[in-house]
Amino acid sequence: MTNAPLPNPEARLFTLLGEQTAITLGTAESCTGGNVAHHITRIAGSSAYFLGGIVSYANAVKHGVLGVPEAVLRNPGAVSEPCARAMAEGARQVLGTTLAVATTGIAGPGGATAFKPVGLVYIAIAAEGAETRVEEHRFPGDREAVIAASTTRALELLVEAAERLLAADGMASRA
Amino acid sequence: MTNAPLPNPEARLFTLLGEQTAITLGTAESCTGGNVAHHITRIAGSSAYFLGGIVSYANAVKHGVLGVPEAVLRNPGAVSEPCARAMAEGARQVLGTTLAVATTGIAGPGGATAFKPVGLVYIAIAAEGAETRVEEHRFPGDREAVIAASTTRALELLVEAAERLLAADGMASRA
Repeated sequence: MTNAPLPNPEARLFTLLGEQTAITLGTAESCTGGNVAHHITRIAGSSAYFLGGIVSYANAVKHGVLGVPEAVLRNPGAVSEPCARAMAEGARQVLGTTLAVATTGIAGPGGATAFKPVGLVYIAIAAEGAETRVEEHRFPGDREAVIAASTTRALELLVEAAERLLAADGMASRA
Repeated sequence: MTNAPLPNPEARLFTLLGEQTAITLGTAESCTGGNVAHHITRIAGSSAYFLGGIVSYANAVKHGVLGVPEAVLRNPGAVSEPCARAMAEGARQVLGTTLAVATTGIAGPGGATAFKPVGLVYIAIAAEGAETRVEEHRFPGDREAVIAASTTRALELLVEAAERLLAADGMASRA
């Protein structure tokens, strides 16, 4: 009996979505800086379901491209649950995708405040016909580790959301 | 005497731009899929000059977000000199940056045609007050190698363009 490694989440996305045309993915990345999109597109054939992403490092891009309200960026700020939510929902709209995931956090080593330590990351998943979900994480480690952990969790949220959509669609087809 | 490794281009960008506030960077990525932005933002402090990027995998995003004309996407198509040029210029405008680099090509293994082989990549650099430059490359190797080579060259073009701007600015300051 072999112990095959578990497939990584970007490979899972291809297994789930490579053969269908209904579900499309987008990204809105702040602290992960493009690494989520990079992982998705490392997989040959990902263009069947990945339409694109916005790397919104500056607040001007979060507002101007993704439509995050300026009031949110002022308070509670870019590293917050409402900002992650607005980024994911804005990405879905701008990119025209079924699902969109967003990351915003403090990768470090700079940028921390008394209430927002290095490793604090919000990850939001927006899906057609569903409430947007947002997770708060406190990832340990240095900048590279925080980016890697945030990327993996964002990809996992896309997998879980795609599975939910496919399951709902399967039930609808059998109804 | 030590032989220190040459700094990679993303580290060069920080050396050039980390201490100034005038020059900002943006990206528009198709075949590199976010990897250029990921490399720039791996560097702590990159938020001083990197405002954001657009990963425009689907033509709808190239047109809708970056403003690439539909006529260009039809012919000569997304993997072409005019498309790379329009992506870079569109990214500069949408992101509000001084410089923007764009990549579009065929990372493979799928997507090749008789006239557009795997490894054909166009990389454009748009700069404030300068003609947009576009390079055509034929990178060898598999998907991972083509993405890596395209990413490195895109980063080098940003370094070269930043050096030109800083040199021009230095001359202007002494005039």
